[in-house]
Amino acid sequence: MSGAQFGAETSAGGEFVRQANRFTDRITESGSSGRVVEPGRYRLVVSKACPWAHRSIIVHRLLGLADVLSVGVVDPIRDERGWRFTLDPGGRDPVLGIEYLAEAYRARDPEFTGRVTVPSVVDVRTGEVVTNDYPRISLDLSTEWAAFHRPGAPDLYPTAARAEIDEVVEPIFRKVNNGVYRAGFATSQEAYDEAFADLFGELDRLSDRLAGRRYLVGESITEADIRLFTTLVRFDAVYHGHFKCNRDKLTELPVLWDYARDLFQTPGFGDTVDFDHIKRHYYQTHDRINPTRIVPAGPDLAGWHSPHGRETLGGSPFGDGTPPPA
Amino acid sequence: MSGAQFGAETSAGGEFVRQANRFTDRITESGSSGRVVEPGRYRLVVSKACPWAHRSIIVHRLLGLADVLSVGVVDPIRDERGWRFTLDPGGRDPVLGIEYLAEAYRARDPEFTGRVTVPSVVDVRTGEVVTNDYPRISLDLSTEWAAFHRPGAPDLYPTAARAEIDEVVEPIFRKVNNGVYRAGFATSQEAYDEAFADLFGELDRLSDRLAGRRYLVGESITEADIRLFTTLVRFDAVYHGHFKCNRDKLTELPVLWDYARDLFQTPGFGDTVDFDHIKRHYYQTHDRINPTRIVPAGPDLAGWHSPHGRETLGGSPFGDGTPPPA
Repeated sequence: MSGAQFGAETSAGGEFVRQANRFTDRITESGSSGRVVEPGRYRLVVSKACPWAHRSIIVHRLLGLADVLSVGVVDPIRDERGWRFTLDPGGRDPVLGIEYLAEAYRARDPEFTGRVTVPSVVDVRTGEVVTNDYPRISLDLSTEWAAFHRPGAPDLYPTAARAEIDEVVEPIFRKVNNGVYRAGFATSQEAYDEAFADLFGELDRLSDRLAGRRYLVGESITEADIRLFTTLVRFDAVYHGHFKCNRDKLTELPVLWDYARDLFQTPGFGDTVDFDHIKRHYYQTHDRINPTRIVPAGPDLAGWHSPHGRETLGGSPFGDGTPPPA
Repeated sequence: MSGAQFGAETSAGGEFVRQANRFTDRITESGSSGRVVEPGRYRLVVSKACPWAHRSIIVHRLLGLADVLSVGVVDPIRDERGWRFTLDPGGRDPVLGIEYLAEAYRARDPEFTGRVTVPSVVDVRTGEVVTNDYPRISLDLSTEWAAFHRPGAPDLYPTAARAEIDEVVEPIFRKVNNGVYRAGFATSQEAYDEAFADLFGELDRLSDRLAGRRYLVGESITEADIRLFTTLVRFDAVYHGHFKCNRDKLTELPVLWDYARDLFQTPGFGDTVDFDHIKRHYYQTHDRINPTRIVPAGPDLAGWHSPHGRETLGGSPFGDGTPPPA
C-alpha cells in the first residue's frame, strides 16, 4: 500500500478513506481455499518503503521462508503506472518477468482499475496476483505456512493469544498504522485534527501498556508488535514532518522509543529497515503534500542503535524459538 | 518579509534568493537623511508571524517606543494582494486608513511591482512607505530614536560592541535567519542540502559559543540575541517540519533550547510571540510547500515555560537598564 491517492480515496469531509483490498484469495495448507501452500509456487512482492508490506517482510524473515516463498522488491518511487521492478536487471522481476506489478493484476483481471498495492502474492505459474490482502498475508505466513517454517521459528500468532492480539491491533490499525495516513492525507482541518487526536491518544495508551511489559501481548514478540513497529520506525523519518504527526517525535515518547529500539535491535526488525527507500518513497511520491519532492536530510538516525534497557522487563523475544540466522 | 515567492526569487540552481529591500530611506535624529525622528509622525507596520518584523517588535517594546511610534499589525494570512489590515475594524488600519500595506508602497511609487514586506515604516502624514529595510529599522530604533527611549531602556547596540555584534549576526543572517528559508524554498535537492548543512553547522557553532556565556555578545541582551531568537522561537513550530530543517528539533539542542527559553521568559520576548499567527501564516500561505493548507496541531509548546537554569552563567538581561513594564 502506502500509495494512497487524493481524490478517489477522499471523502466529502476531507477524510482519507483507504480502498478495500481487491484480491483476497487465501493460500492454505489444506488447499480448501482453492490455493494450496507449495514451495516455489508463489512470489511475495514488497516495497521496503511501505509499512503494510514491511509486516510481511519481517514475518517472512523471522519464520525463515526465503527458500519456499521468494521475494521481489519494487522501486520505492512509482511512476504513473505504479510500482515497478526498476531495481532488477533490465527492469524486470527475474521470477515473474514483468516490469510493473500492475501486469500481475491485469493478468488476473483485465478490467482492474484500482490501486495496485504491496504486499502482493503472485502465482508464479500463471503470473496472476492471488492476494493483496495485507492483514491476512502476514497471519497466513504464520499459520498456513507452518509446515515450512525454519527450525526454531517463533510463534507470532499463538492460538491462545489470538483473541488478545486481534483486540490490541484493532485500534493500532485504525489510529496508528492508518491514523498517520488519515492525518497526512486529510484535505480538511477537521479530518486532520481528528486523526491527530486519535493517533496521539492511542500512542499514549500504548505507552501506558508498554511501560511495565516488554511486548504488547504475552512474553514474546507477536504479530501485534510487528504491526506497531512498522509505523514507529517510520515515525520521525516521515510521519512527524511529512504527515504532520508532530505533537512529539518518537524520540520524545520515552516508553515507545525504548520499545521501538528494542525491536529495532532484534534480528528480523532493524535489518529489514531501509530508511533510504522509506524517505525517498514518501517525499518523492506524494506531490499533493510535497510538490518540491525534496527529501529532508534529517533526522539523525544514529539513536536507533543506542541501549534501550528493556531487557529488565523480562520476557524473551522469540519465546521457545531462536533468532533468525543473519 | 516572510512572504517569499517561488519563481522571481528562485535561481536557476533551485536556490532561494531573497529580493533586495526596496525602500531604504532612513529616519534620523538629525534629519540629515531627509527624514527626522518625530513622535507621532510614523507608523511601524508588522506581522506577528514574520521573524524579520519580530525583531522590530521586540526592540520597540524593550525601548518603550509605543507612545512615539505606533504599531499596525497585519493579518497573518495574505491574499493575492498581500498583507492586509483585516484584523482592524472595517478591515482598515485605523491610523493609515488603508486596507492593504501595498497601498503605502504605491503611494510612494505607483510603478512598484516587487514584494510588499514587513516590517515597513510608513509616514503617517503622506501615507507613503519610508523604509522596509528590516536590518536597519531595528538598529535605528536603538540609535536614532534614543531621545525617546523609556527611562531604563537597555542599550541593545552599544557602541563598544557594535563590531562584534555585526560580526556575529552576519552568519546568523545567512545561515540561520535566511538559512531556514533557503532550505524551505529550495526547489533542487542540492540547494536544500547546502542550506541544511549551513544551518545546522551554524547552530552547532552557536551552541558552542553559548555553552559558557548567557548572551551572544557581552553580559546583556543585544540586537544579536534578538535576531537569533526570532528564528529559534519559530523552529519547532514551523521550520522543523514545514521547511524540512529536521536534523534536530530545537528541544533536542540543549544549549540553544535553554538559551531560547531564557529569552522567551524575559519580558519583551515571549510576550511578543504569537504562535497562532506564526503557524497559520506559514502553513496557510506557502501553497507550493503545503498545498492542503492544513495547520499541524503540534508541537506541544508547554516546554517554553520550563526552567532554563541559565542564570548561573551570570550576566544581566538589561545591563544597567530595567525590564519593560508589563
